[in-house]
Amino acid sequence: MKRHPLDQALDLAHSDLQAGHFFGATSPDYWNMVGPFGGMTAAVMLQAVLRHPDLLGEPVAATVNFAAALGEGAFEVLAVPVRTNRSTQHWTIQMSQTGADGKLHVTTTGTAVTALRRETWGTNDFPMPEVPSPSAVEPMKIGPKGVEWVRHYEMRPIIGSIPSRWDGSGEASETRMWLRDAEPRPLDFAALMALSDTFYPRVWLRRATPVPIGTVSLTTYFHTDAALLAEVGTGYLLGRATGQQFRNGYFDQAAQLWSEAGALLATSSQIVYFKE
Amino acid sequence: MKRHPLDQALDLAHSDLQAGHFFGATSPDYWNMVGPFGGMTAAVMLQAVLRHPDLLGEPVAATVNFAAALGEGAFEVLAVPVRTNRSTQHWTIQMSQTGADGKLHVTTTGTAVTALRRETWGTNDFPMPEVPSPSAVEPMKIGPKGVEWVRHYEMRPIIGSIPSRWDGSGEASETRMWLRDAEPRPLDFAALMALSDTFYPRVWLRRATPVPIGTVSLTTYFHTDAALLAEVGTGYLLGRATGQQFRNGYFDQAAQLWSEAGALLATSSQIVYFKE
Repeated sequence: MKRHPLDQALDLAHSDLQAGHFFGATSPDYWNMVGPFGGMTAAVMLQAVLRHPDLLGEPVAATVNFAAALGEGAFEVLAVPVRTNRSTQHWTIQMSQTGADGKLHVTTTGTAVTALRRETWGTNDFPMPEVPSPSAVEPMKIGPKGVEWVRHYEMRPIIGSIPSRWDGSGEASETRMWLRDAEPRPLDFAALMALSDTFYPRVWLRRATPVPIGTVSLTTYFHTDAALLAEVGTGYLLGRATGQQFRNGYFDQAAQLWSEAGALLATSSQIVYFKE
Repeated sequence: MKRHPLDQALDLAHSDLQAGHFFGATSPDYWNMVGPFGGMTAAVMLQAVLRHPDLLGEPVAATVNFAAALGEGAFEVLAVPVRTNRSTQHWTIQMSQTGADGKLHVTTTGTAVTALRRETWGTNDFPMPEVPSPSAVEPMKIGPKGVEWVRHYEMRPIIGSIPSRWDGSGEASETRMWLRDAEPRPLDFAALMALSDTFYPRVWLRRATPVPIGTVSLTTYFHTDAALLAEVGTGYLLGRATGQQFRNGYFDQAAQLWSEAGALLATSSQIVYFKE
């Protein structure tokens, strides 16, 4: 049986050297123009935590910093539970890759918090916007050649689709879209981490100008547990992303991901380098 | 001449052992109920980066994870530039404190990105809300006894002040307030980091119920450079914070800080534990 491309991309072999030390490789399925899709790199970082033998609970927060370009091929990930409390666990994560000089270099840093969660009072103060149902929205055309990862997501943009003309005419930076894995796969935490980074750069939308960009840091908060993920299953998520401030080479993006039933599953922020 | 309490709280002595290794101590001026004000701990973490002899550029992003309670007294901070590129630098940061067992334990983890920034196109997609001027808003009464840090900020809440009755009547989780250091001090990056954590817990406002809470992870993005900070000087900032999702023991908060002139200086997110 053929494995789902996301499961292949998340595949990590546990080393014998140290608990939480894993070997993996970049996936051609989730290739971006000049490196892997950052959301997948973030998902692999989280996966190392989830695969650790001493894991306590489920993810609450994860931050991933893209320190250097990740090249095609093998990498290592080290996830360390630096502090384990009664109901929370704090992680540091590093991804490294052997460089042209034959030495191992850090490409990606991160932290995560996992926790045993208990039922409490709760409410959603950021309700899902009113939007047409997924079937009423056209799927996005496949992106530019070489951007393989986009083919592995089904994206149905409602507002803020990729500009059809790069004529500098942009006026707003908000996107709303239905999205899920193109090949159905039940939602899990690693998939949700990747999905939180599927919004194309806000600066392209805001300016209708395709300047060079690169995400520098991504933080995702999880407002779900395994039971709620199971309810979502292979269903659509509504994703919303908007730029906040663009200034001197960096902009930040705030994003939310709701289940089709309106549960706010994840909230996410990122800061992105842009040229010019 | 008496030093500003914030400068005293940020005071770090560089150890001879390793670049980026510092000794500091908690400040009674910024004490919270059972430990230091988390914003000051975050500011000290960033300060270790800013004091590092190999620092490149200025802060773009910082994430601080509160792994364990920090006790009164001495602590150590280690800031490591794990990757230095041409115009960006990626940092890991750890704070440790000697425990009752005589051993050093990690209390706080973090990452930061600093960068040399260049002038580019820019825009603000999250304009400052229209609010009355600082002089038209009453300063907040001093908080409960033992919460020393609040006395060192001048806060003028416009909406979403701390509930005057804890009667479970809350309906919204948004606060807007003018704020600055109570004793005037020109704004810098460490002060801005601390200011991004000055909003009292959203869950108290939303429920008008003072349940136990603790910030677990805080991420702040900086949309300013030293020149813009100098323009702000000792002026007021408008702070806005709102809850997004409250569920099973955790809620997240999104915050923005504008200069009085309307420049969006920082955007921030945090996820907070709450009981019940």
